[in-house]
Amino acid sequence: MNDEKNRNDGRSAAALRPVTFQRGFTRYAEGSVLVSFGETRVLCNATVEESVPSFMRGQGRGWVTAEYSMLPRATHSRSPRESSRGKVGGRTHEIQRLIGRSLRAVVDLEALGERSIQIDCDVLQADGGTRTASITGAYVALADALNGLVAKGLLLSSPLKESVAAVSVGIVDGSPLLDLNYGEDSHAAVDMNFVITGSGRFVEVQGTAEEEPFSLAELDALRDLALAGCRELAVLQDRALEG
Amino acid sequence: MNDEKNRNDGRSAAALRPVTFQRGFTRYAEGSVLVSFGETRVLCNATVEESVPSFMRGQGRGWVTAEYSMLPRATHSRSPRESSRGKVGGRTHEIQRLIGRSLRAVVDLEALGERSIQIDCDVLQADGGTRTASITGAYVALADALNGLVAKGLLLSSPLKESVAAVSVGIVDGSPLLDLNYGEDSHAAVDMNFVITGSGRFVEVQGTAEEEPFSLAELDALRDLALAGCRELAVLQDRALEG
Amino acid sequence: MNDEKNRNDGRSAAALRPVTFQRGFTRYAEGSVLVSFGETRVLCNATVEESVPSFMRGQGRGWVTAEYSMLPRATHSRSPRESSRGKVGGRTHEIQRLIGRSLRAVVDLEALGERSIQIDCDVLQADGGTRTASITGAYVALADALNGLVAKGLLLSSPLKESVAAVSVGIVDGSPLLDLNYGEDSHAAVDMNFVITGSGRFVEVQGTAEEEPFSLAELDALRDLALAGCRELAVLQDRALEG
Amino acid sequence: MNDEKNRNDGRSAAALRPVTFQRGFTRYAEGSVLVSFGETRVLCNATVEESVPSFMRGQGRGWVTAEYSMLPRATHSRSPRESSRGKVGGRTHEIQRLIGRSLRAVVDLEALGERSIQIDCDVLQADGGTRTASITGAYVALADALNGLVAKGLLLSSPLKESVAAVSVGIVDGSPLLDLNYGEDSHAAVDMNFVITGSGRFVEVQGTAEEEPFSLAELDALRDLALAGCRELAVLQDRALEG
Amino acid sequence: MNDEKNRNDGRSAAALRPVTFQRGFTRYAEGSVLVSFGETRVLCNATVEESVPSFMRGQGRGWVTAEYSMLPRATHSRSPRESSRGKVGGRTHEIQRLIGRSLRAVVDLEALGERSIQIDCDVLQADGGTRTASITGAYVALADALNGLVAKGLLLSSPLKESVAAVSVGIVDGSPLLDLNYGEDSHAAVDMNFVITGSGRFVEVQGTAEEEPFSLAELDALRDLALAGCRELAVLQDRALEG
Amino acid sequence: MNDEKNRNDGRSAAALRPVTFQRGFTRYAEGSVLVSFGETRVLCNATVEESVPSFMRGQGRGWVTAEYSMLPRATHSRSPRESSRGKVGGRTHEIQRLIGRSLRAVVDLEALGERSIQIDCDVLQADGGTRTASITGAYVALADALNGLVAKGLLLSSPLKESVAAVSVGIVDGSPLLDLNYGEDSHAAVDMNFVITGSGRFVEVQGTAEEEPFSLAELDALRDLALAGCRELAVLQDRALEG
Repeated sequence: MNDEKNRNDGRSAAALRPVTFQRGFTRYAEGSVLVSFGETRVLCNATVEESVPSFMRGQGRGWVTAEYSMLPRATHSRSPRESSRGKVGGRTHEIQRLIGRSLRAVVDLEALGERSIQIDCDVLQADGGTRTASITGAYVALADALNGLVAKGLLLSSPLKESVAAVSVGIVDGSPLLDLNYGEDSHAAVDMNFVITGSGRFVEVQGTAEEEPFSLAELDALRDLALAGCRELAVLQDRALEG
Repeated sequence: MNDEKNRNDGRSAAALRPVTFQRGFTRYAEGSVLVSFGETRVLCNATVEESVPSFMRGQGRGWVTAEYSMLPRATHSRSPRESSRGKVGGRTHEIQRLIGRSLRAVVDLEALGERSIQIDCDVLQADGGTRTASITGAYVALADALNGLVAKGLLLSSPLKESVAAVSVGIVDGSPLLDLNYGEDSHAAVDMNFVITGSGRFVEVQGTAEEEPFSLAELDALRDLALAGCRELAVLQDRALEG
Repeated sequence: MNDEKNRNDGRSAAALRPVTFQRGFTRYAEGSVLVSFGETRVLCNATVEESVPSFMRGQGRGWVTAEYSMLPRATHSRSPRESSRGKVGGRTHEIQRLIGRSLRAVVDLEALGERSIQIDCDVLQADGGTRTASITGAYVALADALNGLVAKGLLLSSPLKESVAAVSVGIVDGSPLLDLNYGEDSHAAVDMNFVITGSGRFVEVQGTAEEEPFSLAELDALRDLALAGCRELAVLQDRALEG
Repeated sequence: MNDEKNRNDGRSAAALRPVTFQRGFTRYAEGSVLVSFGETRVLCNATVEESVPSFMRGQGRGWVTAEYSMLPRATHSRSPRESSRGKVGGRTHEIQRLIGRSLRAVVDLEALGERSIQIDCDVLQADGGTRTASITGAYVALADALNGLVAKGLLLSSPLKESVAAVSVGIVDGSPLLDLNYGEDSHAAVDMNFVITGSGRFVEVQGTAEEEPFSLAELDALRDLALAGCRELAVLQDRALEG
Repeated sequence: MNDEKNRNDGRSAAALRPVTFQRGFTRYAEGSVLVSFGETRVLCNATVEESVPSFMRGQGRGWVTAEYSMLPRATHSRSPRESSRGKVGGRTHEIQRLIGRSLRAVVDLEALGERSIQIDCDVLQADGGTRTASITGAYVALADALNGLVAKGLLLSSPLKESVAAVSVGIVDGSPLLDLNYGEDSHAAVDMNFVITGSGRFVEVQGTAEEEPFSLAELDALRDLALAGCRELAVLQDRALEG
Repeated sequence: MNDEKNRNDGRSAAALRPVTFQRGFTRYAEGSVLVSFGETRVLCNATVEESVPSFMRGQGRGWVTAEYSMLPRATHSRSPRESSRGKVGGRTHEIQRLIGRSLRAVVDLEALGERSIQIDCDVLQADGGTRTASITGAYVALADALNGLVAKGLLLSSPLKESVAAVSVGIVDGSPLLDLNYGEDSHAAVDMNFVITGSGRFVEVQGTAEEEPFSLAELDALRDLALAGCRELAVLQDRALEG
């Protein structure tokens, strides 16, 4: 598709960074996965709570929600904690709402029953794509937590309908690229995030022109890169859960 | 495209609601537009400030930013003010960041010089599509404010590169529809917002599966509806600015 | 009383600005009135809620409360939103407590039953006297909301005991004036607000010497101007409610 | 004027409670007065700061401002601290703005020069009339602080133009009464506060109908009681400052 | 132990400042003590509440908690109120947790039953050792409040197990000193606070090297000074409660 | 000293848990150490900033400060984020002030020059002793960051005066124990934390009787356990830094 030598880490335009899932990273959470997309590392913990938020009580349905945070020194220069500033910023709100929506799209909430899965995504190290890594890793932690409910006899089978993964794509120096690292992301003209299920259907599409508006042809090229990338991630997720 | 009799207000699937722009709605703002998309009514005020935020000083570039709020009783049941709750919610943050980005995409910030345009979008009445109405109306208020700078001799020509408009699309009862009203939006399976320039290029694409993930064919159908809708809005904006 | 040619908009010392009430300004609120005192325009929405605050429950009495806000660009230069600053300022608190007390003074709270009327006063454009315009307009919105309860059969008759209106008076360049606009208010030596019922009785009297303390004779002159002004406003309110 | 035996502490309708001023109550403040109106006791500390708020710099004028707070157990039942609730309430805002305005009315701010007097009124024990006691006591603390500037040679003479005092009046069981204690205040039909200078001129007039609106005759009776009460307080203030 | 002439107020190294307890300082609190350690003066009010925090309900046990605050002008230069800054600072949190723990250590919470004692320590004047004076005075206020419950027949006997007092010690210019005043505290190399019961047992030990770390010998010397100081305070507390 | 079989993980009373330091755990921080005390794991990152807080500018001295946080699911049941609750709790404040003071005690702040070291301690997994593990690990991260300044030629030599470590001790079932894990800590009668330098001097001593006050003999036994434990930690820190 484009000159592959252009990427700053030697990847081809359509290549993911090395992606790994370290399950059981901490011992108390019902699902605990350290996901890496290259140098981006996010700890995804899933907590099972035997209740739902008050606005949902008595409906016989479960809930999945997420929180997202970066450690202050996950990045090249330190950023202040949101707890010190006394409020959660707009970007954080956007991301945690996105993670929650993405996971709920693949869970049968009726089958889950009146319980909640709380996902915590804490970025230990950030090199671009932290929100897409969070979704991709959180799916594995969620699967572990739900399988735990089955193992304990609290559910007959996992309420997961299919898998879900997410990836960023963008146009850098005129070329559509898959899975941008921080160096690429910071000078991308267009930045898109796709959340796509294992069956190739879309849960979320988010695209922003950082500089120039983009054309229909560019939109289609990015969409195709993301479809292929998420197909690959779904295979890696399955493999991790079998391991 | 689909059975036109299905819409709750008699529109065809590809029809906008009646869209009007009332310029000069208040007398102090440099641009003041009351935009209506059917029963959705948003007051868009543009304020010129002869300075930029501190992080941008000395770079010779201008800035455009936006704030968004709903009056408590814009909706069927009253919602509490964000000032009473002591913080601005996540949804509000998302929307005002979106409005700001969308407008900046069509302004030559170097040509604007070291001044800011502050856009305030206050929803007086809400019947779906308040964020897309805000962007579409704010563009007209912005154009008025920039033309005012030209009229005062502070700028040689307007730093607008082209127009920008926004529209929502969605899949309701299996059919792709343009410009959802509240009744449609509240049971849409898929909800997308597109921000598109007068030249037909994309500034923002945001799509969310509220229930089921959506297919590639559905994504393409929604994209086409939005392109046509924004083309129509661009004509209405031009006409309003000539009036 | 004084040289009538002195007022900056040609009014005589004892004249109100043109006062209008636009009922049904928005469609969802149970009472919705856009009140104008000259260029001052306030949207007064009344919401009926079938409950009372927790500290009042079980007493068989209703409640009326108010919130007040200015749109950022209601004024000549933009002022920041209170939601962005994360708290409601002292002036806003004073005004919304005043509006609530003024309206409760004319409502038979036992007859209202255990329900609340929430009044929202949002200033769209400010040219002095926004708190007195808010009270005067809110009374009309309140009457509409209460008549709505009668029309629905929820109340046998309106629990309003009489009408209430408010007006500002002040001493400008040595002369007592009625209904100050912003230009007058900003260099008044004394500024008073009176809230007076349709039967000519006082609900609130608030006077402040902005520069020099004022004499007993001046206090009496201002009181008389306000009594006459509110008598006139009561007639206009009645007429609007009959319309 | 009314049956004097009716007051719950044996006073006549037009009598003040015993009023005392204990100067030098704490040792660090430039003025420190413990004022008592019967069982109401307020510690008024005046602090001299050799600067003014930023919005006033370079104008050659001084400033006087006030803060007001009640100790949690100043009252019959404990009330939570405003610092614990994370914000200052509306009533506190109203009172501290009132105290500041009242004191500024008798200070020649040009003669004060570019310095601030910060008044802190902390209620140690509350039995009604805490805001009027605060103003009356704060005047004495302010006078001490200003005399201290003269003594140090920083000012040639005190910038006080005259004295200022405040008192509450109200209608209880149909009778106008001076200087209400808590028992009277809590079932007053009308509650007014007057701030009056030593020369008998008005700085602030604040009246509220707690139950029924009040007539013109009642307004005049309350005004006269307050004028006499403040005349008496001015004498007591002078005597305290001579002591 | 060291050259006694070195202390800035003429005390010997092992001497307390004059300590007094003024009981019944305010009239509404169930226990109200103004404690003085030299120029440090703290008002300690104890409030009885017939309930416990929600997390403790139904366990048949009581609770004792404390809040601590300084008046803005308790110190040489004025410090802003925590209510104005919108949050309670870290130092305040530490101190109020310390006061609460110290008092709970000598109360039989089962014998207290499901009620709370809320202690408010408000520093009127600060000259060092405000937290230790608070604990020492709060014990007396607590004893008064508990004796009041006995007097009312709500408790058969006071649930106090023994007395508790607190004192600061430190190393100043190389010498261990008891009960530091502000002048000493501000250049102490080591600063320790001990909370010790009437029977000579430790409730809290807190020591901090402000400059150089301290040796085992120094730790032992400070511990012995504190034991003797608290023994003396226990006698003074007993005497005050008998008075 | 006591029956060694009593400890819930098989340790003797005077034994530390296995302690490890993983340097370079993240790649951007100037010092980054994952410290483990058994199952307690804390990520300690040190950030060098070439400035000091404004209150210290121009004095030619540096500063070391710390922040502390627990991931929500570091513990057996999830606890809410402090950023969501909008404020940093009292316990967190106490701990981060303690970490900062402990590290500053061993740094020559003049030699550091006008720069700051910001320490972030984020608890990934908590099994008791998180604050003492934080101090012990933070020392290693601090040493790495300071050695980095030497390596870059910004400092001639490390401004560390000696090492510092911390350990908890407590009385459990009547026995003094070193380095409590969560199971022990949660039913300890006395809980103490000691911060001790490599030369065996005290920086901080903090002891709290959770149930019964403790005797002089118990205080001395705990002090001795802590001295031995910190001596051992100092050896492990040295070894890690040589590695």
